[in-house]
Amino acid sequence: MAEQEKEAALPPKENFSEWYNDLLLKGEIMDVRYPVKGLYVWFPFGFNIRRNVYDIIRRLLDKDHQETLFPLLIPENEFMKEAEHIKGFEEEVYWVTHGGTSPLDVKLALRPTSETAIYPMYKLWIRSHADMPLKLYQIVNTFRYETKHTRPLIRLREITSFKEAHTVHATWEDAASQVDEAIRLYTDFYRQLAVPVLASKRPDWDKFPGADYTIATDALMPDGKTLQVGTAHHLGDNFAKTFDITYEDAEGEQVYAYQTCYGISERSIASMISIHGDDKGLVLPPAVAPVQVVIIPIIFKKPEGVLEACEDLKAALEAAGIRVKMDASDSRPGAKYYKWEMRGVPVRLELGPRDLKNNAAMLARRDTGEKQQVSLDNITEDVLSLLGEIHEGLYEKAKASVQERIFECEDIATIKEKLAEGIAKVFWCGNKECGLKLEEDIGAGILGIPIDQTEGCSGKCPVCGSDADTQVYIARTY
Amino acid sequence: MAEQEKEAALPPKENFSEWYNDLLLKGEIMDVRYPVKGLYVWFPFGFNIRRNVYDIIRRLLDKDHQETLFPLLIPENEFMKEAEHIKGFEEEVYWVTHGGTSPLDVKLALRPTSETAIYPMYKLWIRSHADMPLKLYQIVNTFRYETKHTRPLIRLREITSFKEAHTVHATWEDAASQVDEAIRLYTDFYRQLAVPVLASKRPDWDKFPGADYTIATDALMPDGKTLQVGTAHHLGDNFAKTFDITYEDAEGEQVYAYQTCYGISERSIASMISIHGDDKGLVLPPAVAPVQVVIIPIIFKKPEGVLEACEDLKAALEAAGIRVKMDASDSRPGAKYYKWEMRGVPVRLELGPRDLKNNAAMLARRDTGEKQQVSLDNITEDVLSLLGEIHEGLYEKAKASVQERIFECEDIATIKEKLAEGIAKVFWCGNKECGLKLEEDIGAGILGIPIDQTEGCSGKCPVCGSDADTQVYIARTY
Repeated sequence: MAEQEKEAALPPKENFSEWYNDLLLKGEIMDVRYPVKGLYVWFPFGFNIRRNVYDIIRRLLDKDHQETLFPLLIPENEFMKEAEHIKGFEEEVYWVTHGGTSPLDVKLALRPTSETAIYPMYKLWIRSHADMPLKLYQIVNTFRYETKHTRPLIRLREITSFKEAHTVHATWEDAASQVDEAIRLYTDFYRQLAVPVLASKRPDWDKFPGADYTIATDALMPDGKTLQVGTAHHLGDNFAKTFDITYEDAEGEQVYAYQTCYGISERSIASMISIHGDDKGLVLPPAVAPVQVVIIPIIFKKPEGVLEACEDLKAALEAAGIRVKMDASDSRPGAKYYKWEMRGVPVRLELGPRDLKNNAAMLARRDTGEKQQVSLDNITEDVLSLLGEIHEGLYEKAKASVQERIFECEDIATIKEKLAEGIAKVFWCGNKECGLKLEEDIGAGILGIPIDQTEGCSGKCPVCGSDADTQVYIARTY
Repeated sequence: MAEQEKEAALPPKENFSEWYNDLLLKGEIMDVRYPVKGLYVWFPFGFNIRRNVYDIIRRLLDKDHQETLFPLLIPENEFMKEAEHIKGFEEEVYWVTHGGTSPLDVKLALRPTSETAIYPMYKLWIRSHADMPLKLYQIVNTFRYETKHTRPLIRLREITSFKEAHTVHATWEDAASQVDEAIRLYTDFYRQLAVPVLASKRPDWDKFPGADYTIATDALMPDGKTLQVGTAHHLGDNFAKTFDITYEDAEGEQVYAYQTCYGISERSIASMISIHGDDKGLVLPPAVAPVQVVIIPIIFKKPEGVLEACEDLKAALEAAGIRVKMDASDSRPGAKYYKWEMRGVPVRLELGPRDLKNNAAMLARRDTGEKQQVSLDNITEDVLSLLGEIHEGLYEKAKASVQERIFECEDIATIKEKLAEGIAKVFWCGNKECGLKLEEDIGAGILGIPIDQTEGCSGKCPVCGSDADTQVYIARTY
């Protein structure tokens, strides 16, 4: 699609925002030219990445969840039942008011999230202890009338790829374990995207509307801001009381069930491409790359045997389950390198007459840029093992980059200074007033209390100066 | 979920409408109790079937199409551009008029179909001959404000599983070939669901709003009505003119492109379960059955070795890629048979102490009800081959049932009589007036001209009596 426009370099990644926008177009992830603010179009290449990413989350969830699908449209009366929940969403909800040319009797909300669509059905489905735990999920489009600046994959009016799980449990403790399990599952999911995430318990004033508490996972973006890329909410029995979800306990009494919900979205893809990409374009972890290996035949003089050798190589790699593309188009080699580097293909193999004579190929790694000659003997095994190595390399590099950008800080001035680069880790007395004052003084939010908090450490709250044994992350956020 | 309610028999299939509704609940396909008319909830089991069905269509399309995703919301000005198209849909469109508590500047339509969402982008993407053919598809939710009687999977206000493809071609002829190709692809798809379909060219007054012509595939339902389960539209350059989709031809002139679109929906699942199901519940083609084999250990006296042998059998079948469930629950065997028959599991294996001694199992086929003892030697190969046989059996039976219910008719009275049982095949002079008169006299619609029309046959138009060499299908339709 309009190749000629695109062979220009990206802006340097230091200019993160420009780089990101240009990468989405040139890497063929999203087209931002759809004529409604905050709505974007997935290019087929981007959608292919999306498929691979969502296959991973499906595989992880399918072990003990079931996939389902609930309606998009929620009647106003159901939507308005849970008071805290409405407060959290009322300014963001799109309303359908007309069907054809007639006004509807009951207004319909486009789900901003599906608690109020799902829980009236859970009321019907949960009867006894034997119906729990119930663990369902769906992957759906959801809608938020965002008034803030919108940004593809990050802040959307149509979240096209919201994976939301909703579970029901007999006890508060079981639900709490499920929240922990969800965070482990998301951490594992992000590990498979080579994205390190930080899990923390959100401060009470930043939890999900209607929840007892929220634990979230955040990715640290190249510009030092954090992106919330997963949340898990303990809903207590708050929604169960609103939607009358009860079961008969051992004594024959009807008691309320406990619930959790947890979600991720295409922000997973935003974090992955932002963290790994470079000035030449996408750098995709092999697990999700639509093309894992591109083969470039060097054939400017149409030498015999090269194309056939490339076809054989392709077939051999494909037989091992590797996603391979052979680019035998008429473009110049340089244009081909540009194109497949932009699209983040982890491994490039070039094969010309001289290589063929040596029973070898030239291999270029997208992540490090290294080139080396490799033998065609055992090339399948070598490429498979290299793909694994590339994945680990991406993860380790990203992890080191996060570690380098978490700063233990003791006073407001240092916090402010370090926030330009990354995350401040600060002691906090736990008092809400101090927390809010801290946020105000710094001009950034408390992300939350790390779930892997070190036991027994202590310091001083930078606001009130009292002793504190709790640390919090503070960050500029998307 | 509320097992106790469900061990009652279905109404007989002769009472198709009641049978269908009850099957959806007891077979755990859809829950119809969602509190908005025309919107339904997929049970996890039903959604599992949906996954398998849509994996098939994806595999077929992925050979030369690419999957993508466009926004749900279409701004009023784009939606209103194509006059015929609007006329076809204006009474059926849901409108979003408010974001939060504020009215929107531009009303947004929930897509009833995506031409007007996609084609403004195609204008940007199509520049030259080299950009064509462009063949994209998406699987999305679409919305129709249906005023007719709604019915799960068949007539919905939220079509949850609309697969729509949109292609662009350089010539009218290329687009026509693509329409034919789409019909072949759909026929193949339905073949994999063991559903025979009839393809016919819709009369001009029943084509897609804005198309040059429409070819559709219909399934013949148990009650003798036809269900339209796939459509392919030749859009000519009608939409290209509206949305300014042009390319530079060999002479350097900007000319309009030609387009097609084609779609299927969850009606594919409706037809499949309706055609194959029986008084005991679902009968699922093995390719889409979430459970292909259920193993029932006969263990009422806890005999040694039976459970282990069942586990071994399960592992052996799974290793061959078969989806197996072992039901070692405490329920009575009768309750287990009821449950798994209702869910359409193609093969049941019962294994008790006596079987074990004989190195055998009792095998029951869901489609024919036949039971026979089978040796545990080679059981994997035998089951695999039986699954294939079951699929063919379902298809052949369904095909014979369609053939028996197509009646060649010469006069209005016979047509009317035969329509109670199935489809009338009738000569038609091709005159629109006669066609409309025919529909009026009969009280049923002309489905279309069969695409496999026999060459050279001839008869008389039952309305005007003139010679005719075109036959049409007439049917009562959903």
